[in-house]
Amino acid sequence: MNDLEEKTINSEEIFTGKVISLQVDEVKLPNGKMSKREIVKHPGAVAILPITNDKKIVMVEQFRKPLERTIVEIPAGKLEKDEEPALCAARELEEETGYECSNMEWLISFYTSPGFADEIIHLYIATGLSKKENAATLDEDEFVNIVELTLDEALNYIKEQKIFDAKTAYAVQYLQLIEEKEGK
Amino acid sequence: MNDLEEKTINSEEIFTGKVISLQVDEVKLPNGKMSKREIVKHPGAVAILPITNDKKIVMVEQFRKPLERTIVEIPAGKLEKDEEPALCAARELEEETGYECSNMEWLISFYTSPGFADEIIHLYIATGLSKKENAATLDEDEFVNIVELTLDEALNYIKEQKIFDAKTAYAVQYLQLIEEKEGK
Repeated sequence: MNDLEEKTINSEEIFTGKVISLQVDEVKLPNGKMSKREIVKHPGAVAILPITNDKKIVMVEQFRKPLERTIVEIPAGKLEKDEEPALCAARELEEETGYECSNMEWLISFYTSPGFADEIIHLYIATGLSKKENAATLDEDEFVNIVELTLDEALNYIKEQKIFDAKTAYAVQYLQLIEEKEGK
Repeated sequence: MNDLEEKTINSEEIFTGKVISLQVDEVKLPNGKMSKREIVKHPGAVAILPITNDKKIVMVEQFRKPLERTIVEIPAGKLEKDEEPALCAARELEEETGYECSNMEWLISFYTSPGFADEIIHLYIATGLSKKENAATLDEDEFVNIVELTLDEALNYIKEQKIFDAKTAYAVQYLQLIEEKEGK
């Protein structure tokens, strides 16, 4: 609705990096007063919920520098310029896990932090998995361990805070919902 | 696991704002090579899934400058310095919706964007809602419209991409799961 809109009066570029950039916008609020908004620009990303034929979720353990710890997540990665999300999902699945899939289905897209960032994640579910020979490999600055978990193990990882991020929590809950609907 | 750790060799402060700050860390990778990590620091936040006595979800529509549009979200807000998350949740619920609650229960905490930010959201469910007289009001630069939705309406909002953020998608799916378990 238009009555909530914040009009940009000025936009200052603060930083441009290899992943994100930062700007500070001076905005006119709905009541006519001025304020500032700190905005992180991100290219967008995909995440993949890969389910093996024996119903395990393929996840990756990786060190996340902002958290100074390793966490276990579903595979994910940034969109390259002009890259189609479904193709990016297939590429990231292969690079991070060595799997290819016969079926890749879009589930949902969501903004991760709409208060300060424009990052959007497109979440896919991948089934019909098979290990690919000579699979593409990770970027030279990425290191992961592969972990395959049952739904119950994943739920325990959430309790133990080894799984600790929004996209993975959503994905695990999605599987819970599916199993509940199927009358597990 | 330690073999994935990235050691900080140098950390450069780029920006300190009123909500976030930005630093670029030079890190030593597990293979001994060097790389850079762009890291957004955030104070952390709470989000609240408020359920009215007639089973509606109380949400707020607000303009999100990073997205240049309004979206409908569950109430949420940043932690003040040293603020207890459950108290922050009660404060934000009151400020954004005018409701107080007799029961506030923690559901899950997750990082929103572990690749580039340390923002954590603590998600609560609030029940036993009643409108508070002389409720605390929003910060002077916040403007919201209140929207009360049934679960089916919320699911439609997700399809129509009026609901479009991770915490709200998780919260709506959580309710779906509960209703499924109760054999709706």
